[in-house]
Formats: sequence, structure tokens, C-alpha cells
Amino acid sequence: MGAMEKVFSVTLQSGKITDVYFAKDIKDLSSQLSSYSQNALWVFDTNTAPLFKNLPPNRVVLESGEKNKNLKSIERIISAALDYHLARDSYFIAFGGGVVCDMTALASSLYMRGTKLVLVPTTLLCMVDASVGGKTAIDYAGAKNLIGTFNPAQDVLISCDTLRTLSESEYISGLGEVLKHALLSKDEELYNFLVKEKDKILSRDRDVVSQMVKLSIEVKNFYIESDPEEKKGIRSALNLGHTFAHALESITHFTGLSHGKAVAWGCGRALDISYELGLIDNDFYTKANNLFNMYPFDMDYRVGRGEWLEFQDAISKDKKRMSGSVKFVLLEGFGKPVLKQLDMKLVQRTVISGPAKSNNK
Amino acid sequence: MGAMEKVFSVTLQSGKITDVYFAKDIKDLSSQLSSYSQNALWVFDTNTAPLFKNLPPNRVVLESGEKNKNLKSIERIISAALDYHLARDSYFIAFGGGVVCDMTALASSLYMRGTKLVLVPTTLLCMVDASVGGKTAIDYAGAKNLIGTFNPAQDVLISCDTLRTLSESEYISGLGEVLKHALLSKDEELYNFLVKEKDKILSRDRDVVSQMVKLSIEVKNFYIESDPEEKKGIRSALNLGHTFAHALESITHFTGLSHGKAVAWGCGRALDISYELGLIDNDFYTKANNLFNMYPFDMDYRVGRGEWLEFQDAISKDKKRMSGSVKFVLLEGFGKPVLKQLDMKLVQRTVISGPAKSNNK
Repeated sequence: MGAMEKVFSVTLQSGKITDVYFAKDIKDLSSQLSSYSQNALWVFDTNTAPLFKNLPPNRVVLESGEKNKNLKSIERIISAALDYHLARDSYFIAFGGGVVCDMTALASSLYMRGTKLVLVPTTLLCMVDASVGGKTAIDYAGAKNLIGTFNPAQDVLISCDTLRTLSESEYISGLGEVLKHALLSKDEELYNFLVKEKDKILSRDRDVVSQMVKLSIEVKNFYIESDPEEKKGIRSALNLGHTFAHALESITHFTGLSHGKAVAWGCGRALDISYELGLIDNDFYTKANNLFNMYPFDMDYRVGRGEWLEFQDAISKDKKRMSGSVKFVLLEGFGKPVLKQLDMKLVQRTVISGPAKSNNK
Repeated sequence: MGAMEKVFSVTLQSGKITDVYFAKDIKDLSSQLSSYSQNALWVFDTNTAPLFKNLPPNRVVLESGEKNKNLKSIERIISAALDYHLARDSYFIAFGGGVVCDMTALASSLYMRGTKLVLVPTTLLCMVDASVGGKTAIDYAGAKNLIGTFNPAQDVLISCDTLRTLSESEYISGLGEVLKHALLSKDEELYNFLVKEKDKILSRDRDVVSQMVKLSIEVKNFYIESDPEEKKGIRSALNLGHTFAHALESITHFTGLSHGKAVAWGCGRALDISYELGLIDNDFYTKANNLFNMYPFDMDYRVGRGEWLEFQDAISKDKKRMSGSVKFVLLEGFGKPVLKQLDMKLVQRTVISGPAKSNNK
């Protein structure tokens, strides 16, 4: 630092607690929701609003879809809160997937510097990923999640009944993140559960899926509690598979391929490289791959040679988030993530030709 | 609460430390500023940009004034950061008064969920008030500071040399908040300093003013560290005089009267009522009033009978921030604020006719 005299060090701390509730059924959820006072703003999108017979009057219904995850939607939420004369001690209640939850959480952190926030995730992806951990976001100027805050919900209400309304593709997308969590777990409880209960999971058995969501959130909690604002290199482990996934989503122009499927594929590539670098042994490599192969993920997808430059460019965009170079999340075993810079030749070979036949063990 | 099963309580904590530096002179400040890397966005307004011979290229110059404290200016800052390819680990450096600092701090908390933030307050009001404590804001739909976050600066750099550029009215405005802090201090050091050094303070002697700013920030620190997000009724004490001040500013339509002068007047009214309710004795009442009367504040201003309804309406707007009723900050002595709901008849009499001749002691 320069030459000035440091006179004060002021510490501002805030401990925010998120309570996660599980509903036995829709009635249970409704009863919980009715416990929030009239002093609330309800945020739906055009997908979730029709799920209700009687919408509360103090509501906003946003257009669904990533293309509406923008500042204009945030202004709509804030203007509605102002119209309904909501104060700092009111609730913003989001009912939807990641887009609705991320935006409601952002608006809640901004309105009068923060209202109470309740998230009711209605997709599996949102239940196991977006709803817990406090990341809020909108896209801006073509950059995904460029604008956001850290604003953990006070309550997250999960009712796995809502998952029945999802398309097969949306449901499987959420499973991608669940399987990622199975690798990041220090014990093998989630892994074993996913193997044992595969059929009931795929048929969306409510009790089994609830248990799976609980185990999955438990894994995420460990990482976010250790590093809430992603500053210590611990929370970043939740990006396992994501650098590969973002690049794949980018070269496929987000058409057809769901986020969770891309994440599953990315986890496969992280496993390939972890194996090739000798970080994991053959047993773990096989065991981990077996899990992904049990579920409907296309793990053998290969990037075309002609697509490599675009793929590499997408990786370097991920890189811009930190001035340094991009670090990939690799594994040394269950719950043992490591962050590593990688030789791009190795990345290229892995995504184009698949894993090397032998490793250095 | 309702009927759902609470399964997790996730705690997210963030301890944010603000370091406050004082420059001996402008050279000292420049040297400190040069220690921030190229990896920075500089935010000026049309008042502060001309103070620099060589503006850094990676800059934004906002139109000065409260009317530009809006979402459009936030977008300008964020777009510039994107244009200069700034990452999460870059610095946003604000150079200006409260409007520039509040907006840069908000943009910094939003861009990629938070960059590093340095504030260089150039007005006395901003040095002793806006720059420390983490409140960020813009106005929205006619509501002052409706949108904001809590985002403490990493560093605040104070050079009292910049105060020479202020008009007399701007400088006196800052003193209003300083005198308020003297009443909120648990000891009488700031009070005695303001009495003893009055002439040097009014002539803006650099060393004396630096010392005054330090003592003033020290008082504020106590309240913000005890209650960073204004949820425990401790930080609210910093609003001493402000409910009266906001209402006065509202009925005078923000013309002519500076914020700090309105705050000084508001402190006078809080003292009147504290005295009338028997919270303070005649000695403290006289001593406190003497301080305000030593400086160029119009403490005897009275609200006209015909202005009362408008004044009362402005108070009730302050109230909307919390669903309950508005609480005034009163005093029981140096550093002994109390929050109280007040009978509006008492408020009316106090602002129109002045304090009652006798109190209940």
C-alpha cells in the first residue's frame, strides 16, 4: 500500500441463516405459505402462476425463460413492491425455477437494502442448486449472471410434488447436479442412494426423491458454509464439471442440451483428466463413471475438431471472472476436490478424443 | 410457522473490514491511489473529474447531482467495467461526494456479485457519513435511496485537502452531521474539540479538520459495528435529527436548505422533546444547544402552521420504511440515544411553536 496512515479498521459482520423446510405434500406447503403475513410480494412466472387456482393479489407474474432474466424484470418486481407499499420487514416469495428464484432474491436484496426472502423452488435443479447458497443474479449485455448479490433466503420451502410438473428433460437436468454432489460428498451415502434407488428416482417417487434432495443439499451446505462468498477456493469446488459444461453449452448454443446434462458430461471430463493425471485410481474412476452411466446422460459425447477453437474461447470467457487463469475442479476421491490450471493441449485431447487409454499408475 | 419439517439451517457469514486512511496531503493521497493496480475502474462526476490533470483511461464520469442517482448511472458504471474487461478481483474507485460514493458502492456490489471497493470522499458530509458504514443506494420512482445494498468499502481514503474545493454551504452541511455525532458520543471529546477549535474548523485548517473527521468517524463506527444492517435499533440512533430533517427538507422542496443544516435543526427539535419529556436535564439541554448555536445553523427556524400537514405527511413517508409506526431518536445524555414513538401533537407544537418554557423536572 501507499503512504497514508490507516486510522480505523471497521468490521461489519452479518450472519445469515437459511432454514430449509420439506413438505410432506402440497397441503403441507400451502399451510406453511399461509403462515407468511399479507405483508408479502409473490413472484411467479408464466409457468408457475397457472399451478395456483387463486393467486394472491399482491403478485408479479414474470415472463418465463432465461431471456427475461434482466434488469427490466427486476424493475417490475421492485415497482410492484412499491405499489403494494411493502416495507423492509416484508417478504418476497418466489415460486419457480432458477430464473424466478435468482431474480426475486436479487430484487429482495435491493429493495430498501433488503427484505425477507422465501424461495419455493419448483424444479429439481433449483432445489438442489440455486435455492440454497445465496447467489442472486440477472444476465446483462449478453453476460450470464453478470449482475447479482449474495443474499441467502430466510426460508426455502421444498415440496417434491411440484417435480411432477417437470418435463423429463428438466428433471434429468436436475439429476446432473445431484450426481455431481455425490462425487463432492465426503462419504458415499448419496452415491449409494443414487445406485440403490435409481428406479424410484427416475419414476419420481416422492419420498425417495425428497431423501435424495436432502442428501444433495447437505453436500452443497458443506461447501457454502465454509466459503459463503466464494473467496477461499472451497465453494468453487461446486463448479466441478462446470467449466467444461459452460463451454459445451456455448458451442451447442444452448439448444437441446440441458444445463444438468452438460454438467454431467463435464464431470466425466474432470474424471478423465483426474485419472490421467494420476489423482484418482482406476477403482474410483470406474465407480464414478458407473454412476453417470446408470442415468440417461450422454457421457461419451465428443467435441468436434472444428469446434475446438470456439470451445477454447468459451473457456477463456469463464476465465475473465478472475483476472488470473482459469482453474478446473478435479478430484482426488469422494469429497476431495482440487483446483488446477490445466494445459490446454490436455483439455483439447480429452474433449475431442476421450481419455487416454492408460494412466500413469 | 406452518407444518413443514425444517431440515437444514445453513449459516452464511461474512465479516467485512473497512480500513480508513488519512492523507497528510494530496501527494500522500496520490501515492496511495497509485498502489491500486491498473485493474480498476475510476468513477468521477462532473464536479470531481476536473480536479485531475490526467484522468486514468479506465474511467466513468457521471453527471453530478442527486437527479442522476438512478439505475441509468449504475448501468453506465457496470457497462464501463465490462468494456474494460474487469473481473471480480478488480477495484471500483469512487472519487466524489455521497452521490458518487453511494452509486459506485452499489455498482461494485452488483458487478459479478462484488468487486473490491475504494471510496475517496471529497465532501465533509461524505467523509463523516456516507463513506463509512456500507450503505449503498440509488433513488427510484421518486423514492430516495429506495434501491441499495450493504457493501462496505475495503478502503476509505480521506484527504482533507479536498475540502478546500467545497462551497461554504457544502462545508457547513457536513458539520451538521459532525455535531450530531458529538451528541451521540459516549465521551465528550468530540464536543470539547468542536468548542475549542471552532475557528480553525470554520477556516478549514487541514490538521484540525482531519482530527475532527477522525473523532467523528470514531463515533459512527461504534453504532455501525454494533448493528451493521440496522436491524437491532442501535444503528438507527445515527438518524438523530433525521426524521425532522427529512420532513423539513421535504416541505422546503430541497431548495436552499442543505442536508446538514436540516439535520442540525432536527437535532435541536430532538433536544427540545427530550427535555420536555424529562429525558435530559437543563444542563445537558443548554450545553448541547450551545454547540449548535456556536456554528452557523439556524436552530430557531419554525415550521409555519400552514405547512404542518405537509410536514406530517413527510414524517409518515419515513414511517413506511418499517411497517410499524415511526420512531424518533431522542437523547438521555451524551451517547445515550433512545428510540421513541411520539404523540404527533407534541411534534406539531415543537416544530411550530418551539419548546415548552418549563419541563417536568
